[in-house]
Amino acid sequence: MLPAILDLSTLRDLYASGRLTPVELACAIADRMVASTDPAVFITPVGREALVAAAADLLARHPEPNSLPLWGVPFAVKDNIDVAGFPTTAACPAFAYTPGADAAVVARLKAAGALVTGKTNLDQFATGLNGTRSPYGAPRSVFDADYVSGGSSSGSAVAVAAGLASFSLGTDTAGSGRVPAAFNNLVGIKPTPGLLSTTGLVPACRSLDCISVFSLTVGDGLAIRRIAEGFDPGDPFSKATVPHPLPAQGLRVGVLAPAEREFYGDRDTEALYDAAIARLPDFGATAVPFDYAPFRETAALLYQGPWVAERLAAVAAFHAEHADAFDPSVRAIVESANDYSAVDAFEGRYALEALRRRAEAAFAEADILLLPTSPTTYTVAAMLADPIRLNSHFGHYTNFANLLGYAAIAIPAGFRPDGLPGGVTLVGPGFSDDALGILADALHRAARPGMGVDRHAALPEASRVEPPVPEAIPLVVVGAHLSGLPLNHQLTDLGGTQLRATRTAPDYRLYALPGTQPAKPGLVRDPGFAGPGLAVEVWGLSPAAFGRFAAAIPAPLGIGKITLEDGSAASGFLCEAHALDGAEEITAHGGWRAYLATA
Amino acid sequence: MLPAILDLSTLRDLYASGRLTPVELACAIADRMVASTDPAVFITPVGREALVAAAADLLARHPEPNSLPLWGVPFAVKDNIDVAGFPTTAACPAFAYTPGADAAVVARLKAAGALVTGKTNLDQFATGLNGTRSPYGAPRSVFDADYVSGGSSSGSAVAVAAGLASFSLGTDTAGSGRVPAAFNNLVGIKPTPGLLSTTGLVPACRSLDCISVFSLTVGDGLAIRRIAEGFDPGDPFSKATVPHPLPAQGLRVGVLAPAEREFYGDRDTEALYDAAIARLPDFGATAVPFDYAPFRETAALLYQGPWVAERLAAVAAFHAEHADAFDPSVRAIVESANDYSAVDAFEGRYALEALRRRAEAAFAEADILLLPTSPTTYTVAAMLADPIRLNSHFGHYTNFANLLGYAAIAIPAGFRPDGLPGGVTLVGPGFSDDALGILADALHRAARPGMGVDRHAALPEASRVEPPVPEAIPLVVVGAHLSGLPLNHQLTDLGGTQLRATRTAPDYRLYALPGTQPAKPGLVRDPGFAGPGLAVEVWGLSPAAFGRFAAAIPAPLGIGKITLEDGSAASGFLCEAHALDGAEEITAHGGWRAYLATA
Repeated sequence: MLPAILDLSTLRDLYASGRLTPVELACAIADRMVASTDPAVFITPVGREALVAAAADLLARHPEPNSLPLWGVPFAVKDNIDVAGFPTTAACPAFAYTPGADAAVVARLKAAGALVTGKTNLDQFATGLNGTRSPYGAPRSVFDADYVSGGSSSGSAVAVAAGLASFSLGTDTAGSGRVPAAFNNLVGIKPTPGLLSTTGLVPACRSLDCISVFSLTVGDGLAIRRIAEGFDPGDPFSKATVPHPLPAQGLRVGVLAPAEREFYGDRDTEALYDAAIARLPDFGATAVPFDYAPFRETAALLYQGPWVAERLAAVAAFHAEHADAFDPSVRAIVESANDYSAVDAFEGRYALEALRRRAEAAFAEADILLLPTSPTTYTVAAMLADPIRLNSHFGHYTNFANLLGYAAIAIPAGFRPDGLPGGVTLVGPGFSDDALGILADALHRAARPGMGVDRHAALPEASRVEPPVPEAIPLVVVGAHLSGLPLNHQLTDLGGTQLRATRTAPDYRLYALPGTQPAKPGLVRDPGFAGPGLAVEVWGLSPAAFGRFAAAIPAPLGIGKITLEDGSAASGFLCEAHALDGAEEITAHGGWRAYLATA
Repeated sequence: MLPAILDLSTLRDLYASGRLTPVELACAIADRMVASTDPAVFITPVGREALVAAAADLLARHPEPNSLPLWGVPFAVKDNIDVAGFPTTAACPAFAYTPGADAAVVARLKAAGALVTGKTNLDQFATGLNGTRSPYGAPRSVFDADYVSGGSSSGSAVAVAAGLASFSLGTDTAGSGRVPAAFNNLVGIKPTPGLLSTTGLVPACRSLDCISVFSLTVGDGLAIRRIAEGFDPGDPFSKATVPHPLPAQGLRVGVLAPAEREFYGDRDTEALYDAAIARLPDFGATAVPFDYAPFRETAALLYQGPWVAERLAAVAAFHAEHADAFDPSVRAIVESANDYSAVDAFEGRYALEALRRRAEAAFAEADILLLPTSPTTYTVAAMLADPIRLNSHFGHYTNFANLLGYAAIAIPAGFRPDGLPGGVTLVGPGFSDDALGILADALHRAARPGMGVDRHAALPEASRVEPPVPEAIPLVVVGAHLSGLPLNHQLTDLGGTQLRATRTAPDYRLYALPGTQPAKPGLVRDPGFAGPGLAVEVWGLSPAAFGRFAAAIPAPLGIGKITLEDGSAASGFLCEAHALDGAEEITAHGGWRAYLATA
């Protein structure tokens, strides 16, 4: 019996224990797709036969369970991303073509063992945030079929939330990888622009488009993103770069000041946002109000500025011949491109660069931002009645992110009293994608929202996101560098942290060195001697800090290897033998601190 | 008697020795400006009275010679850059305004003690590379008044070459800070876009404009640029970043392949380019042919693509009312902006990003590029007869640099047989500005072109550009880590370099440690012992490499301080005393290598 939702940890456990095979999974997914109550999720399902064949092929090539990172993991692909042999429609039947090659990201995921279950519905040409702008129907929130699924990655979100896939690929230009996550109790990983290749993607705004990941946990989403990402020399917007770190402690999290709160009257979603803010101190983070104005003004540029010209540029040849094949809302947006000249385009760029400078000022006060994902949600009927204005509400807190090159992770924040979910989004500087995940996972777990359609699922421990362990060289200190003693600041000034307190092996002797200032001991090994072992502390230093520290130690001291009571050896203070002439042996005190207490 | 040209080293020497004061300099410059045979260099000279007053004011505030980095150094400012109290015309009288504040860069230079001598002529709105597009006349090459000065920074270049200033500010969008350097035997420092603030600059193409520096030596230019640069939060295109290093040895220098050579028939300028290439091996650099096509195609985008819309955006309000105030060539270029839509602007961006990817491929083969600055030069008469086409020739090797975000330094390359100078330009990745200067200075000195109008001036040693010294922690090695011995690779693997070979102080003893593999000695200090001193080598390691190395040393060895024969102390290998039990003393051999030779 397959669980209702298919997070990676649960699936791997089932595979590892032999309770499930990829072929059985393929059959079960095919059954679920047939039984699905929402007919608008997939534009082109892979179909039972092809899905089972792909699973059998994986088993033939890689028979060992979990022998690839995404072995037998089912995923759905938004239908503006190429999967070889399946039509790419971008939700516009007249536009459809059948690619011969996978999009670069799809190829990476397939190579990692993942199985495509189908091509999912979307707002046409990824233009929209609501999920109703498609001739293939409007997918619905898995929690209430009267309500929109969010878009444009509508089908991809519903597929994961409904247990039709473990994860899915969406795209995100204005917020299409985040808004549907909020409406379906999912994690939406919105990578920094350029991190994931867009080769094989039908562009919406080429300079801004990101392929995104919907997943059930932050840990799943990060793992999938790492597999999917990588520099692509064939993609002019691909970026090769290094991760942007965030402070390991004392993270300052920007939250909306009262004047910039906009929930369009939805106090229930506002309460979910406040609850997320209230949890920040539990994870050592501090909420700091910041000025949302530059971000709001940037957001407005996306649809009320020259960037709409990118939407026309993306489909210009098709539009010239098939203007009547467009969804009316999408067509109106695409054709508004003609209102803008090249001068307007550069003026827009200047406005954006000035806003970027103002946004940097906000980021000087806050390391990352915590925002509502969407301020509210609407029924399908309401959206169809007022499609441009209500859609724009969904992008109030999302539209700015790609214009400014940021990373974002949308996470579930819990449920409104009416049973609809709400979400919050962490936004960080470009390439903080991994660093953002630590707090995102913590806040997600603390909200206890279940996963996807299953409000009561416990988030698996195996997918918990742990902070990275910095490379630290251990250093054994025995004298004036012990915590609280006069030279300890040399370690803390270099960023050193105490790892543990312990004792040396028994064959060390300790001497009080005469004439040192501040007073220092000398530690000397005497093989065969059976003493008490001496109290020491082990500190961790980065390689460069260790190098600077070791180079600064004055004679007669030096850095050698000290054997500890557990038999391990670590770098630590030694003393040249000649310096012990006339020195008092203090081994019997058991350590420098104990000796000082009696001196 | 003031020298013909006023490089910084010469001027500082004159000030330091008391042979010249800033007031005397101000008078002499005023005399020269009156006597100048080229009436088109300045649009607004500061005037004798104001120049003397500024010098006197400097003396009153900072009486000590050379007590500021640019104490009493005269400089000229292109008349599209604001100097408080003087009109900014951009070579369009109807456009002129008088700013109340200095441009950010001018303010920094003034604060460093430099004295403005005047506002210089330019191709109107910095649109041109030849120097004839100005109602204030056409400055001429200091070497032949029939020939163009180059532009658009025409007056700024001639002012320095003619000894009317020590340096000057130009601007460079297409090549305006490089081409006039080539035609006047000057150095043209074209900083990476964003390095120098553009606050107070009349834009040409805001996304591309750089303020540039003309100087008489590379060392002068780099020093001035470092004073002028700095992040400006008020300039949306200002960039805060870190320098881009270049390899310290074995630099690969991209040179034009035969198929991409274009000199418009000027074999003499081509010969100067070949001579520069031929000098590369003298400085440890290797010429590697590279594919210029992506750079040539990028260059074409600047005037034959949507970027001309930036030129209209910069002056749109003025153009709307005063179209007939424009120079005819400039007006034609500015008005061509109306041919481009916002879609064209984004298509241009896409084309640029694809070209950037292709350019990166060239930079995978070459660390920097060596190009002709301008392929040839023309008389003023020829230029006026065919102003668009001949102007475009000058930009053949310059137009791409700012679109791709590169740094460039134009240097003199010597003289054609007809007495006109030619130049070459080094182009490097963004923020390689300082690193480029090392080879630029070496090539400049090797070409022996004099400075500015003085073909026989020797380049002062004081302005020589030296490579940076990396932060290296010295490490004294005494045994198996000596060069050629079994563990030396541990140092070279970590990037270590040998600094010198020397001996320890006399009070060290050396022992052959029993049972070590590979064989190792132990070094022990014995205060009062008068031995031969032991042969050691001093190696340099980065802090991180030193840390990794020190942390990996096995007991009984360690790192302490070794006193050398010159009395200095450095980190080096020590040995725990207990390990010497039963070890053979080999001090008399004078070192480990000598001992091995006898063992």
